[in-house]
This record gives sequence, structure tokens and C-alpha cells, in this order.
Amino acid sequence: MKPAQPSLWTTLFDAAASSQGLRERVCAALRQAMRSGTLAAGQRLPASRVLAQDLGVSRVTVEAAYAQLEAEGYVMRHTGRGSFVAELQAMPQTRATGRVPSTPAKPATPLALSRRGQMLVNTGGCMEPLQLQAFAAGSPDLRAFDHALWRQLSARLLRTQPQDLMRYGDPQGRQDLRQALTQYLTQSRAVACTAEQVLVLTSSQQALQLLATALLDPGQRVWVEDPGYRGARTAFEAAGATVVPMPVDAQGLVPDFTLEPPRLIYLTPSHQYPTGATLSLERRMALVDYAHQHGCWIVEDDYDSEFLYDARATPSLQGLDGGQRVIYVGTFSKTLFPSLRLAYAVLPPELVIPLVTARSVMDGHSAQWPQAVTAQFMEQGYFAAHLRHMRRLYRSRRDLLLQALAQHCPWAQPLPCNGGLQMVVLLPHGTEQKLTLTAAALGVATPRLGPLYAKPNAVDGWLLGFAALEPAEIERAAALLGKLRP
Amino acid sequence: MKPAQPSLWTTLFDAAASSQGLRERVCAALRQAMRSGTLAAGQRLPASRVLAQDLGVSRVTVEAAYAQLEAEGYVMRHTGRGSFVAELQAMPQTRATGRVPSTPAKPATPLALSRRGQMLVNTGGCMEPLQLQAFAAGSPDLRAFDHALWRQLSARLLRTQPQDLMRYGDPQGRQDLRQALTQYLTQSRAVACTAEQVLVLTSSQQALQLLATALLDPGQRVWVEDPGYRGARTAFEAAGATVVPMPVDAQGLVPDFTLEPPRLIYLTPSHQYPTGATLSLERRMALVDYAHQHGCWIVEDDYDSEFLYDARATPSLQGLDGGQRVIYVGTFSKTLFPSLRLAYAVLPPELVIPLVTARSVMDGHSAQWPQAVTAQFMEQGYFAAHLRHMRRLYRSRRDLLLQALAQHCPWAQPLPCNGGLQMVVLLPHGTEQKLTLTAAALGVATPRLGPLYAKPNAVDGWLLGFAALEPAEIERAAALLGKLRP
Repeated sequence: MKPAQPSLWTTLFDAAASSQGLRERVCAALRQAMRSGTLAAGQRLPASRVLAQDLGVSRVTVEAAYAQLEAEGYVMRHTGRGSFVAELQAMPQTRATGRVPSTPAKPATPLALSRRGQMLVNTGGCMEPLQLQAFAAGSPDLRAFDHALWRQLSARLLRTQPQDLMRYGDPQGRQDLRQALTQYLTQSRAVACTAEQVLVLTSSQQALQLLATALLDPGQRVWVEDPGYRGARTAFEAAGATVVPMPVDAQGLVPDFTLEPPRLIYLTPSHQYPTGATLSLERRMALVDYAHQHGCWIVEDDYDSEFLYDARATPSLQGLDGGQRVIYVGTFSKTLFPSLRLAYAVLPPELVIPLVTARSVMDGHSAQWPQAVTAQFMEQGYFAAHLRHMRRLYRSRRDLLLQALAQHCPWAQPLPCNGGLQMVVLLPHGTEQKLTLTAAALGVATPRLGPLYAKPNAVDGWLLGFAALEPAEIERAAALLGKLRP
Repeated sequence: MKPAQPSLWTTLFDAAASSQGLRERVCAALRQAMRSGTLAAGQRLPASRVLAQDLGVSRVTVEAAYAQLEAEGYVMRHTGRGSFVAELQAMPQTRATGRVPSTPAKPATPLALSRRGQMLVNTGGCMEPLQLQAFAAGSPDLRAFDHALWRQLSARLLRTQPQDLMRYGDPQGRQDLRQALTQYLTQSRAVACTAEQVLVLTSSQQALQLLATALLDPGQRVWVEDPGYRGARTAFEAAGATVVPMPVDAQGLVPDFTLEPPRLIYLTPSHQYPTGATLSLERRMALVDYAHQHGCWIVEDDYDSEFLYDARATPSLQGLDGGQRVIYVGTFSKTLFPSLRLAYAVLPPELVIPLVTARSVMDGHSAQWPQAVTAQFMEQGYFAAHLRHMRRLYRSRRDLLLQALAQHCPWAQPLPCNGGLQMVVLLPHGTEQKLTLTAAALGVATPRLGPLYAKPNAVDGWLLGFAALEPAEIERAAALLGKLRP
């Protein structure tokens, strides 16, 4: 970890590595910040000198980028006062959607993406943080992982059955992993399934995108939690679905059964993302009944139920329903590591053949080697031990972050955090954007809550990741946040 | 390799492992054979005793499966004469598309897949052979691969930078791999690109599916080669495109410029799949001109240009065009190994941001570890050495198969085969299906040419894979084929 070095801007700048030339990379980073709402209309851009230093590019490059963004209509410059984000409404559609003319003078060639392609681009995409930084959210601790053990299992498999692991694989996933998953999910999560219902995928994002594509026609309604997981929203929007945000309280999603029934309901019932609420039994039963009555699918995203600290996780919604209308989705990105690229869905029997067929057309199958290593890791009891170890570790880090915030940032109000890799802290009204940018200038990432809401600025707050950080890093970054003045 | 054991049926049976219960697996295997055209209308099914022995299930199970298929309308049984495939026209739509009612008496619950989901299922999916068997097509030799070297590079990377390789990655792919690919593609394939235009994906199937989704609206026309690669056709059909088959001669695709211009042209110009023809320079230039004039995209699938035996591969079409209208697609599935799950597309600059965004919504990114190992494998010169070694090896196996066929099967007429992992052999008119089933009964897989044509039975022939087979296996399987009587 380079402490306090990578800022919001360097992250975006790194993410824009695909752009040609430094100026275009700076432009791309800034456009992304504006599109994602990190930079809001009317907000002042960083001074060119500061940004140049931060990104390690020349000030001339940053000035040129600002000039180009001004020409494109993204930015208004006022001599002596600085550069400001233009009103989004004023931005031409082609720009708000990521189709960016490289030179403002020449009119952009129409790219003529398909309607579905344009919908995919309009979502703004899904980016996870590429580098470890306090308090980026969403990553498990990779330093505490038992690399030697993984390497050993991995090498042994490669030595003993190399060809088996190198050839084409089953689009549904390896039998050994589906078996190990079935045992784990039935025992630990009360999921009702056999290995024949398990579909191995590369990520929960792929699971959501597959389900959205296979089950949703454009215009069909999907209920999502508000605030909620952006990756799910992008998958549903990319399918052209009408996303209907449902409010969330301390008992999870508050369903409004007076509305027209949706085709699909997306939920994080064990540990709502991002608030951490657990869906009450009463609402679980009501939702399952409702889904049966109206023929809706429920997608249960059980993304981090493995890391609950103060109580056991509630059994899965899928098990309550007997796996008829509920499709269960889980991932190894948080329990093992993100670049493993393994996730899973538990499907009702009648969806297995259609979805395996669809998956085979999309990307064939998942790599066999990581599947085989993961299966052995589970079968030999290492997975359960790893989860126990990580649970203890993350709990202590949660406690530490709570302490440090109380000490340094009394103006930040943590919501109850009974689990997971990150916690929500509420901020004084109207301070979220300002505090976020100031924190970024100090080298601390503080993911905003705003973009997780359907309506901008519903609540001011941050979603602070703590699980991947060692105690000294938490202390240090919290102390830096203590310098902010809301 | 279990010599001569896995038949067409065991392969399908293995592929149907997702089905619940043995009877259902047998049914699924047979339905798949009928949908894919391996079993044609009017054809006799294997005797239940033979199939039971082949699959290692009880005869009762096979009988029960036949009875169920009869009830579903797939099969007609004539006492004393055996079971026959019913006319496809008579099959209800829900069955032909893979939505299979589990009991024929009860009407199938409407699954209500989305239109796009139904299109995906209607393609029939993409299945590669899961097991090594003479003469299954499409796999490189995994036994001749330098596993120790790969293991060593792999272990070293995991030891020196475990956390880097475990965290979330760039949706566009690792910089080191994109750089190594750029060097390889510009030098060996005359591709015109920088690393900023390279998109790392998990498979060429994913590349085709991404391009089809992002560039094609339902109903738009796509030209494909006829015969041609089924995986591409499934991707275009899944996007709802209208697939227009173009004939192929000894100089590759024969374009018909009098037709209405398509939105996209899909080609395998270096080594046409499956005929092996190289697209002539004249046609290359005509197609690129045409694409510029009519604003079509050309997708150049360069799937096995690395394995040309008698001449150097023609430089890429993408380079001829300067990478403006041509999108280049390649894969490591054949040059390294299929379960690596790495492929790549070289995009025109204006498509980079839209397609990387779309990819991030689809499945996030490709795993970092295999990318890093592959980058080092290329940088350190092992890739070039591996290709040289494999080229020599595969050439000798091609020569051997030609000899063995001439000796044992004078009725099989090989087309000129100047490269690749498989060769086309033509069969006497009207014998393809019969010979294929008889060969399967002898334990020899002989992938049919028929399903690669737009119209059934245009030509009788096989596409015989030889690259993955050792000399004795080629000899033995060819001798078995010698028992067939066309």
C-alpha cells in the first residue's frame, strides 16, 4: 500500500488507461467523475496545479484537458475563480453516455451502437477499486490470505491432473465445485438445492447480467433496494428494464404491494447493501407469497452473509421458498479473492437448461483450474477455517474504525454495522460532496453514499471499507479525516 | 485417454450432467443430438442394450428415456423394428428450443423467458468436447504442453505479487498482457494497433457475443461464411440479427455485393473455418472497400492462424484496413489451452470506451493471474517457442492422418489442409449421418460437416481433429473407421 498516495483522481486516471494520450486520460477521468456524480454540477474542479501533481502529469496537460472539457460543454471556466462542472442537463446526450468526441471542433461520427449496446454504455459501467486504499469499499483482506496454502493446492492439482484442468469445461461448472458448494450452501445458508441446480459463473455481476438478459424484456419492472447495489442496477438497466426503487428501513426493503407487480425483485436480505439491515422474517414471508401469487422472480444476492459479527446470518430466503421463485446468487470475490472470478447461482430446476445454454453462448464456461482449487479448499475444510479467521479479523477492524471515528470525526454518525466489509456513516446535511473531495485531496478515499440512491443527495454519507485495512492504516486515515471541517 | 470408450453418446451424456436423474440425462443427450442434427428425422436410435452399455446405465433407464421421448413426440417406436427420430416439423416449438417438459402428461409451465433469453436458448448453445477423443475437433494438444514451465512461472508470480494478482482488475485487461499482445500481433499478424486498443476477454465466444450485443439490433443483417463457425452464428442469432450465409470457395468467402449491405461481416480470412481456405487479396480489398463505403463492421476471427504448416499466414485483414472498420478477434484457447479463458479483441479507438464499459457490466473483468502468467510467457519468448514446437508437431500429425485415411478409408476425400487443428474430409453423397453413427458405435467421434452449413446436407463430410492426438491414437482410430462401409 502506498499510504495516502492514490487519490480519487489517480484511481479514475488509472481506470482511464485505455484512453490515448495523457490529456485524453485526464479528460476521461474527469468525465467519469461527472457522470458518476462524484463531481456534481456547479462544483469546482481541482486547481490544475494540484491535479497535475496528484496525477504526475504536467500542468499543461491538465490545462489542455480542462480546455477540451470546456469546449465539450462539461466545464465552465471563470478566470480567477477556477473551473466548474456544467449543469448536466446542458450536456449533450452523446457526452453524458460516454460517447466522447475526441476533438470538439469536428462533429462526432455517430458510433451507431445497437440499442442494447447504448443501454449498456448508458449504465456508466461497473468499476471496482483497482488499488488498496483506505477507505475504498468492497475488497476483502488479501494480505491475511493464506497464499502459501493456495499455491500448494494449486501446484499439486496442476502437477497431478494438468490436462484435465486445461481442456474445455462444462458450461454449468465442475461437478466437484458444484458438489462442495451444495454442501456449504445447504448447511450454512439453508439453501434448498442439489448440485444439479448450481451454475458456476465468473462473478455475481455475470450472474445478474445473465438473469437480467434471460428473464427481463425491455420495459418490465424490477424492484431494487434504495439505496442499493449499483452493479445490480446496471445489469437491469442494460437489459432495458424499468428499475423501481423501494425504500429501505432497519428491517430491509419496504415493499409497496399497492404498485403494479414487478417481473423481478432484487434483494440483499441477509445484509442489505449498503445499510446492513437484515430483512425481517415477516417481510421475507410476505415477499415470497407475493412472488408466488404474481409469478415474479426474486433474486437473492447473498454477497457477504459470511461476515456477520454479532449474530449468525439469517437462513437464506431461497430456502424459505424452497427454491421455487427465489434465485440465489453468491460470490467468492469477498470470501476468497476478487480475481478468482468465481461466483454461483442456484436456479429453480426449470431454469437450469435455459440458463446453462445461454451462458454457453455468452462466454463458454468458467476456467477449470480455479474451480478445482476452490473445490479442494472447501472439501478439505480450509474454507470454513478461512471464514472463521476472517470474521474475527474483520470484526476487530470494524471495532477499531468505530473507535477511531468517534475519536477523530465526531461529526460522522455510523449506522449499526453488524457485519460486512464496510460501514455506512452519515454526514451533516449537504456536506457529502465537499467532504469527499477534501478527503481525496488528503489521500483518503471515502466512497459516497449519494450514487447508491435513486435520487441524488437523499442522504449525505459515506460507505467506508475497513476489512482490507490493517489497524495502523485505519488509524492513520481516520486521523486524516479528523482534519476535515464539515 | 480412454481409447475408443467415450462415444458421441457418452459425450452428450456427460454434457447433460446438469439434468436431474439418469433417465433425464439420457433424454437430454438424445434431445441434444436431435436438435443439433446429429440424429436426423427418420433415423434409428441405438438399440437400448447398446446405448445402456455405452453409457454405463441400466437398460431399464434407457427404455424409460425412450418411452419419455416418445411421449414427448421426439421419437416413434415400432415394435420389433426399434425407435426412430420423429419428423422435426412435428415437434412442438417448446421442445425444439430446449424447454423440455419433465412429464409429458402435465402441460409445461410457461417459463416466460425474455425474448432475448429465448433467442439465446434457441441457438442451441455452444458446446466444446469435454474429453479427449479421436477425432473430436477444436482442441490443441495438452499433453505436449510444457506444464512444468507454466507451473513454475505461475508459482513465482503468486509468490512475488500475490495481492496484486488477487484484487479486482481492469475491465480492459492487464497492461502487461495488452502490451505483450500488441507486440505479438503487430509483428506476427501485421495488426495495426496500440495496447490501448486491445481488450482482454475470457474467450472469442465472449468477444463475439459482446460485439453482437453492442453493435447489432434485432433484424440487422450479418454476413457469415457458409459453411462456417457455429459459435459465431449463435452469438449473432442470440442478438436477434438476421444471419445471411455467403458461400465459400477455395479463395474464402464469396461476397454478393448485389445484396442489401449488412451491418456486420464475420470472417475467418487467414484459415477459413472449416474449409481452411485463405481469403484472396482481391476479395480482402473488395471487402474492406465495401465496408468503408457502406459503414459495415468486419469482424476478423483469426482463430488458428498460428498453425499454418506449408506457408506463412497472410497478414491480417485488420492491418490492411488500418483498423478502422475491421475488429480483430483472437484467442489463447488454441495456442495455449482452452481453460485458460483468455482471448482478445483489437478495437477501433472509438469503440474502446463503449465496449470496455459494456464488458464491465457483463462480467467485470478477466482473472488477473492467468493474464500475468501469459504476459510473462510471451515476454520471455516461451510463446514463440511453443508455437514453433506445436506447429511442427501438428504438421506431422496432419501428415499422418492423411496417410492413415488414404490407407484405411479411401472413400474419404480430404480437402487441402494447410494448417489448423482439424481437417475436412468429404464423404460419398448421403452417407454422413449413417457413417457418423456407425463410427460413434465403434467409439470414434467424427464431427459432422452438416451442422456447419446453413442448409442441411449441402455436403457430406467430417471435420476431423488431429492436433491433440498422438500417432498411435490417430492410427488406431483411422483403422476403426476403415471398418465402415459407405
